[in-house]
Amino acid sequence: MKKSFQDYYPETLSHCYGCGPNNTHGLQIKSYWDGDESIAVFHPEKHHMAFPGFVYGGLVASIIDCHSTGTAAAASYRAEGREIGSLPPFRFVTASLHVDYLLPTPLGPPINLRSQIIEIKKRKIIIETNLLVNDAITAKGRVVAVQIPDHLVPETS
Amino acid sequence: MKKSFQDYYPETLSHCYGCGPNNTHGLQIKSYWDGDESIAVFHPEKHHMAFPGFVYGGLVASIIDCHSTGTAAAASYRAEGREIGSLPPFRFVTASLHVDYLLPTPLGPPINLRSQIIEIKKRKIIIETNLLVNDAITAKGRVVAVQIPDHLVPETS
Repeated sequence: MKKSFQDYYPETLSHCYGCGPNNTHGLQIKSYWDGDESIAVFHPEKHHMAFPGFVYGGLVASIIDCHSTGTAAAASYRAEGREIGSLPPFRFVTASLHVDYLLPTPLGPPINLRSQIIEIKKRKIIIETNLLVNDAITAKGRVVAVQIPDHLVPETS
Repeated sequence: MKKSFQDYYPETLSHCYGCGPNNTHGLQIKSYWDGDESIAVFHPEKHHMAFPGFVYGGLVASIIDCHSTGTAAAASYRAEGREIGSLPPFRFVTASLHVDYLLPTPLGPPINLRSQIIEIKKRKIIIETNLLVNDAITAKGRVVAVQIPDHLVPETS
């Protein structure tokens, strides 16, 4: 199976609730390139409800957030011509997150995320995301991602 | 025990993952007045991790979001001089959510939310929130909450 951006995270940075492959309680979102855009598909659980029939807004925000920071890391590797996952790792955190909820997001079908890189600098990347269900854009996100400060990076094995 | 804003939600609107008292998988945040501000305290779980020692950003966004929509409902009752929980219910959804992550949020101590109502209209309320751990503001949120569209409201029992 094709490896996602998150599957290349170093083990010490792989426990995020939203995107860590090693967080067994978490959402474990998986992001991939599709040309110049990044994509992810998330299958919500019944309990990810706002009210009957619709996804709660915190989930929408969470998956946009983690998909964006993963995209930022992948984009950095690509910008430097480095193989994804090569050391030292790129790993981004969120400086700001903005979500516009355009329509209620139906709970049931897969949620599709599709992101564009709006601005890329060495330590700061801006990502914009459309969140779609059944081909309708129900939310739009904008994330300013910054490289994780060095003093917060656990030792990389 | 004092009832929170969320404890007054009608049963049909009480299943939100973030704030529904009837979502057994959910976060079940509880919000209260403290003078003109609203407050909530959230106790994160170990798995709500971004990376070791810190809370993941999606949780920060989620609790700001739900605390804000709960505050919007409570503020509407108060603005109309009605008892909270009286019918017909006020229930708000999020039109937009903005979070600035100022510092990494330590994972372990209680997370405190403290919100101010910036603007209040009949169907639209703007709420700003400081999120604090150990008295340090680690994130700031701004939510534009709008009354849930009538056609989305399940029948109230």
